[in-house]
Amino acid sequence: MAEPTGTRAGDHVLGVDSGGSGLRIAVARIDGDGARLQPAATFASREPVHTGPDGIDADQMLRQLLPAGAELAEEVDADRFVAVCVGAAGMGTLGDALRARLPGALATAFGVRRLALAADAVTAYAGALGQRPGAVVAAGTGLVALGTDLTPTGGWRRADGWGHLLGDCGSGAWIGRAGLEAALRTHDGRPGGSQELLTRAEKTLGPVTGLPAALYPRPDRPAVLASFAPEVAHCAAAGDPVAAGILDDAARHIADSAAAVCPPGPDAAVALTGGLLALGDPLLSPLRAALAERLPGARPVEAAGSPLDGSLAIAAALAADRLALPVDGKLLQITGHVTSSPARRAG
Amino acid sequence: MAEPTGTRAGDHVLGVDSGGSGLRIAVARIDGDGARLQPAATFASREPVHTGPDGIDADQMLRQLLPAGAELAEEVDADRFVAVCVGAAGMGTLGDALRARLPGALATAFGVRRLALAADAVTAYAGALGQRPGAVVAAGTGLVALGTDLTPTGGWRRADGWGHLLGDCGSGAWIGRAGLEAALRTHDGRPGGSQELLTRAEKTLGPVTGLPAALYPRPDRPAVLASFAPEVAHCAAAGDPVAAGILDDAARHIADSAAAVCPPGPDAAVALTGGLLALGDPLLSPLRAALAERLPGARPVEAAGSPLDGSLAIAAALAADRLALPVDGKLLQITGHVTSSPARRAG
Repeated sequence: MAEPTGTRAGDHVLGVDSGGSGLRIAVARIDGDGARLQPAATFASREPVHTGPDGIDADQMLRQLLPAGAELAEEVDADRFVAVCVGAAGMGTLGDALRARLPGALATAFGVRRLALAADAVTAYAGALGQRPGAVVAAGTGLVALGTDLTPTGGWRRADGWGHLLGDCGSGAWIGRAGLEAALRTHDGRPGGSQELLTRAEKTLGPVTGLPAALYPRPDRPAVLASFAPEVAHCAAAGDPVAAGILDDAARHIADSAAAVCPPGPDAAVALTGGLLALGDPLLSPLRAALAERLPGARPVEAAGSPLDGSLAIAAALAADRLALPVDGKLLQITGHVTSSPARRAG
Repeated sequence: MAEPTGTRAGDHVLGVDSGGSGLRIAVARIDGDGARLQPAATFASREPVHTGPDGIDADQMLRQLLPAGAELAEEVDADRFVAVCVGAAGMGTLGDALRARLPGALATAFGVRRLALAADAVTAYAGALGQRPGAVVAAGTGLVALGTDLTPTGGWRRADGWGHLLGDCGSGAWIGRAGLEAALRTHDGRPGGSQELLTRAEKTLGPVTGLPAALYPRPDRPAVLASFAPEVAHCAAAGDPVAAGILDDAARHIADSAAAVCPPGPDAAVALTGGLLALGDPLLSPLRAALAERLPGARPVEAAGSPLDGSLAIAAALAADRLALPVDGKLLQITGHVTSSPARRAG
């Protein structure tokens, strides 16, 4: 395959993953064949980029991204980044300022010619499966499923990701909330409760009569709910049937979302990625069963890498004119000076 | 029965019901026999009493209560109120300022000698059942069940009322939330959804892709969710099985809460009160079935009156030394100068 115009073997790309827990940046050297790249240098900050009334704060992101990018460039002896991918939670609906500011700022600072702006679900997909057809469920405090068949007309299919009040079914917030509700059922003498969950709730969060006052005024209610999910998994592992039932239901919801976005056919790979994996077998065992039932033709696979790896992979594919993932105006958008070469979509 | 010291036949009592939709006040003339009273004059304001960092704002309540009380006294030609009951949402946990300020202010303004401070669930109970043993489920945007056997040691039993994230199972917010989740399942192509609910959601709330942005930033999220409950009832009445299933589940949750607080025995009355009744037969029909199954010995009854009626009834019972409802430090508290007469608890 011809090397795209203007990209030199040995050039570097930059990947960014911006989310609720902070900003992660990695740089990698591209070697021309488009295979998965190892980060050559990384940067991580625990200061999340804020979202204000105008969406994701581009200035605040640039205040971290520009000096960190310059430091990484020096570390790997790069004189420019030929392509950059910025993955961010909320990019689709809250990314207008990033779309307006990043192309110019990154071109000036690092000579960036190609820039991909991606929803965090897209970088999660690319990190987990690379440029293969399939479905990825990104699950932590929230939950969203994304799938594609990689055909030019197929685009992205998306399921759930509606937040803790409207959906995110099977997510950490969903599991933790169900566990606390079961604890309070026992406290009240209502059926469907669990003494084990009540005991764990009081041990980790204090007397349950104080729960409403501790939860409702907080801006990070979903995270507070999700913080109880490991306790639900702990109780399920210890044999509590109510906790195990919550995780069975969560597994079915996760499989439902995967099935809603997974392309048909035996080649589709299905992966779960994100913090929810840390719940371990009490969730993963019923999840394997639910996926086998809902998607008997698909191949469950381990996620190959993180959203940051996915961001690097998208930047590398962009640099090599081999981006095969669907480009649209919301989930994955290419801005800046993109060479439209005949090799595009050939990878 | 001896008339309590200092109360004259023809004296007046004042009842207050303070909640999220405003402040309601009524005055009634007591005639000595303690039977249910008809309000002689009423006042209603749509300005709810605010809750701040120090709890329910006593000054703001008094700015409405004192002039309205004076007007009502003039209207019924009363020179004092021998007893007052103030029922307020959040009284138990957020009522410290009311407990500190109201006794003195009401004694000065209206010669009040006896004051009851009650949680809104207690005035709902007294309005629905009076001073009979049983269980009352107060259900609107939220849901709480309260029960008592009226024995001196029995006290109040309470179930749910934990708010829209931890419980309030079967409430308006619970039903509306479940309906919106079902709408989004269909939108995503996940199972368990309902095209009818999706159509109603888009008709009443706009394109569902805009729902998260419309819901999450609002401070009144539970009310927004509850606003969709009538649409769920509408779809159930039109034969949608998913909507009907949501209301079946809600009915079971309501019956669970009633059963958790209802005293044993065939004499216990069970009533549902509050705005959720407006959903009509799509909810009330499965609720009758669920109550018959969970509480076969209890007698489902219509609520006799409103929380404002209950507030008046408590004030009248207090004036006549016939208060039989359990008095405790949180749900129903008596402050001010209370005559401890031998006739107390004889009613």
